[in-house]
Amino acid sequence: MTTNHLLVKMVFDRWNTLLKNCDNILQSITDEQLQKEIAPNKNRGIYILGHLIAVHDAMLPLLNLGEMEHPELYEIFVKSPDKSAETIPSVQELRVLWKNQLETLTPKLESIATEEWFEKHTSVAAEDFEKEPHRNKLNIILTRTTHLSYHVGQLILLK
Amino acid sequence: MTTNHLLVKMVFDRWNTLLKNCDNILQSITDEQLQKEIAPNKNRGIYILGHLIAVHDAMLPLLNLGEMEHPELYEIFVKSPDKSAETIPSVQELRVLWKNQLETLTPKLESIATEEWFEKHTSVAAEDFEKEPHRNKLNIILTRTTHLSYHVGQLILLK
Repeated sequence: MTTNHLLVKMVFDRWNTLLKNCDNILQSITDEQLQKEIAPNKNRGIYILGHLIAVHDAMLPLLNLGEMEHPELYEIFVKSPDKSAETIPSVQELRVLWKNQLETLTPKLESIATEEWFEKHTSVAAEDFEKEPHRNKLNIILTRTTHLSYHVGQLILLK
Repeated sequence: MTTNHLLVKMVFDRWNTLLKNCDNILQSITDEQLQKEIAPNKNRGIYILGHLIAVHDAMLPLLNLGEMEHPELYEIFVKSPDKSAETIPSVQELRVLWKNQLETLTPKLESIATEEWFEKHTSVAAEDFEKEPHRNKLNIILTRTTHLSYHVGQLILLK
């Protein structure tokens, strides 16, 4: 196993473990619990669920894997704060989107070869990448993993 | 920059960013806020602060950087749940320990050479490491980074 292969495995082990943790929490709480605020006057569980789906959907164009599948979610759950949108998808709808994303995202990520993870992602210019080679595709997974962990630490409070 | 160097930098960028985020939150909240529960009937801020100090202290023996400096904190803040210990350090004492740890841990981690990060940590046997080379020292930083992010997502709720 090359060091590059090893590093990709280390990062994906964390990413997959946290996705699984998050999925377990979501399965263990009711729709009513997801409607609640994680703490008084803070974001609701439903907002965090929509936020995670939208942020993970936005990884697709960053990794050159195609367009976002649900750009409308990005508007509601990333660009706007909780309780500001007139209508948002229901918990049931978001649960279906989450489940579908879990099933479809992994094979897409697995289609990227080891060496390609060390190439630049789409939002960094080639000349900047020469000076900042850490702005590679693997770094997208790494930053989304810590982002996911941050919100898993919040969703667990609904239990 | 070799790929190994790059990967160590990527992981440490995340670790250092989250330590800084955590420190900023701690500086922006009062001692009284830290005494509060992050959500009703959940851990108090003071417990999470002690927990982070203890978990980061326990990285020293794992990385072969010496003994834990505060093993008593591990008993109180890792082995025991919140509100179970008879006495715990005050918020003021924990703030001093956190600050000292921030100042002393970074140079210790920086003393580890790039290639050494891919060697086994102390809690994995040599024969297991041959089969599981991802159980290296860098993986300790990676797992502690997602652990830190999880709790930063909770401490922010005290603001």
